Amino acid sequence: MKDFSFYNPTKVEFGRGKEELIGSYMAPFGVKKALILYGSERVKSSGLFETAVKSLAANGIDYVELGGIKSNPVISKAREGVKIAKENHADAILAIGGGSVIDSAKVIAAGAVYDGDIWDLCNYQNSPDAALKIFDILTLSAAGSETNCSAVITNEETTEKFGFSSPAAYPSVSVINPDLQSTVTSHYLAYSAVDICSHCLDLYFTASYIPEMTADHIENILKTVIRTTDILLKKPSDYEARSEFIWAASEALNGSTRIGVEGNRFDTHLIEHSMSALYDIPHGAGLAVVLPAWTSWHRSMNPQRYERFARNVFGVQSGKEGVEAFRNWIVKIDAPVSLKEVHIPENGIDQLAAHIFRTIQMAGMQELYPIETLTDLLFSMR
Amino acid sequence: MKDFSFYNPTKVEFGRGKEELIGSYMAPFGVKKALILYGSERVKSSGLFETAVKSLAANGIDYVELGGIKSNPVISKAREGVKIAKENHADAILAIGGGSVIDSAKVIAAGAVYDGDIWDLCNYQNSPDAALKIFDILTLSAAGSETNCSAVITNEETTEKFGFSSPAAYPSVSVINPDLQSTVTSHYLAYSAVDICSHCLDLYFTASYIPEMTADHIENILKTVIRTTDILLKKPSDYEARSEFIWAASEALNGSTRIGVEGNRFDTHLIEHSMSALYDIPHGAGLAVVLPAWTSWHRSMNPQRYERFARNVFGVQSGKEGVEAFRNWIVKIDAPVSLKEVHIPENGIDQLAAHIFRTIQMAGMQELYPIETLTDLLFSMR
Repeated sequence: MKDFSFYNPTKVEFGRGKEELIGSYMAPFGVKKALILYGSERVKSSGLFETAVKSLAANGIDYVELGGIKSNPVISKAREGVKIAKENHADAILAIGGGSVIDSAKVIAAGAVYDGDIWDLCNYQNSPDAALKIFDILTLSAAGSETNCSAVITNEETTEKFGFSSPAAYPSVSVINPDLQSTVTSHYLAYSAVDICSHCLDLYFTASYIPEMTADHIENILKTVIRTTDILLKKPSDYEARSEFIWAASEALNGSTRIGVEGNRFDTHLIEHSMSALYDIPHGAGLAVVLPAWTSWHRSMNPQRYERFARNVFGVQSGKEGVEAFRNWIVKIDAPVSLKEVHIPENGIDQLAAHIFRTIQMAGMQELYPIETLTDLLFSMR
Repeated sequence: MKDFSFYNPTKVEFGRGKEELIGSYMAPFGVKKALILYGSERVKSSGLFETAVKSLAANGIDYVELGGIKSNPVISKAREGVKIAKENHADAILAIGGGSVIDSAKVIAAGAVYDGDIWDLCNYQNSPDAALKIFDILTLSAAGSETNCSAVITNEETTEKFGFSSPAAYPSVSVINPDLQSTVTSHYLAYSAVDICSHCLDLYFTASYIPEMTADHIENILKTVIRTTDILLKKPSDYEARSEFIWAASEALNGSTRIGVEGNRFDTHLIEHSMSALYDIPHGAGLAVVLPAWTSWHRSMNPQRYERFARNVFGVQSGKEGVEAFRNWIVKIDAPVSLKEVHIPENGIDQLAAHIFRTIQMAGMQELYPIETLTDLLFSMR
């Protein structure tokens, strides 16, 4: 194994009805006033907001609120949250939602104790060294934000989709009740499934070294996602499958897949971030488009890893068959596999390639991805 | 998945030479004076103690020390540590050693901030709610104590081997350099391998429910231990195999094997603890004796789990073959499989059964293990 540091202090409270106890999870941290953050008004109409607020009150915790966090969350909204948190002297953020809301909570929590504009810290070069305490009630599993210290956010003015990782941004407690996700639509389930797989595969295919034990762990996550997605598309109320799907999403980005690993990158994410930044498509839908084309192109660069993937995840023998089986699975779960399906026009490819190339340059990967390669790759996704 | 809470805030610093940085890992916690705890004088003759002390000095950390912690650590020695920690106003414990030293560190850390006798908190009913900060440099992987919040200790006066689990007892930072374990003898490697497997198997075979994903995770740990032990017995200097063996030991008891699990017990540990408490044999050697007999006896109570074990860990078809393959492996790595080999005489069995039965009663498991069953089980280990 290569040298590593592992640290993940987030406490996970997993199970039915645990959201009713959110106040009791927050009180031991001395929280007096929380900013509750959420996305759509469904959080209110479903009664979840009320449940959380009741538990806060029962534990002597006051609150202010900010709704309307959207998918591919934006820095302007986070700035609004920072202002509210500062004006109201909030000492914690409670995110009720999925990755977009939790990522926003991290940015706001850091911004609330930072004197400048929080976008300063969202460029992967600086990062916040302090933040308000962060808590969440998870309503959509995909991003893995509930058990890591990273956030990704879009600057609408510059169309940059950047973020940070900071130990200060680990949620203190994440509440995960699988029942809260039983109404996720089949489309969003499929996007989420692809997103989780991509978190595994970016690392698995690009790493120069993965210990046997860690590779087996990653394959376990992939097999779990594939197996449970198939079950959930037929029977969304299957609690057991939902639980495992959800935990696989957390495991995919909680640091456990990087144990002893060397040299991994996030290629498909770098490519996709430009797609959702420019066209505001669901991140998982963008990844579903990118992955089949990217794995076909990338396969020759790491043939043994692709063969292992084929054998251990899909039970087929060659890397080529493995990549095909993965594409077939994406089609089967009804996620898009072409730019056309996500309404990115062919005449937008040059602009998209140029946008991706800026991120590629920031990551110092321009030798691997010259603009011609990116353009070819995007054309193969038409 | 069944409801669970997962929390593990220990930071792991894994890799070559990381022990040279121990002071820099401790300083951010405000440590000013540490009690350094160790077992044999080899920690000094090897230069490891000096390395640690240099790093402490470079970070402005003073120290006092206590050596001579023995395997199956005893409460009298821990009381000595508590006295030293209190008299010298130590604000942290640094354990340099394996599970015995780290477990002792936890007991001393709790005792140093407790007014009464620390044995009061070692009965699995009470548990400490505060402790000094705990750090360690690991020199023997088996117990998993470096990444959990449990401690086991023996009261020599009563021959009770009890302990506690408490969130206050998580090490703040565990330093793991695989090279520090390259001189572990082949016997201790084998005992450790069996101990790690037992941590997995107690849970795996007794749990009333294990999610698919968690079962796969446990099997991954078992396969890693078996694969790497075979390599290390031939080539102790194999860094890669050593790394994976070590990480498997940590994973086996860091909480990850209990995700979504219901109803697990620690049967072989309850049985073995009496053996090492009465005869002071290595814990792993005792487990090597217990496991083949216990799995043969227990197999019929959970036939499907044993079949799964046989198939996924040893690639054989029936539970019976799986149990046999596991026993054969223990024999192959030259660990004892009979009481005779660990010098427990046949005429000691009645006393041993009575001793185990007291623990069994405390755990409320006397219906499953009446004294006759225990006696029969022990006779089958002759």
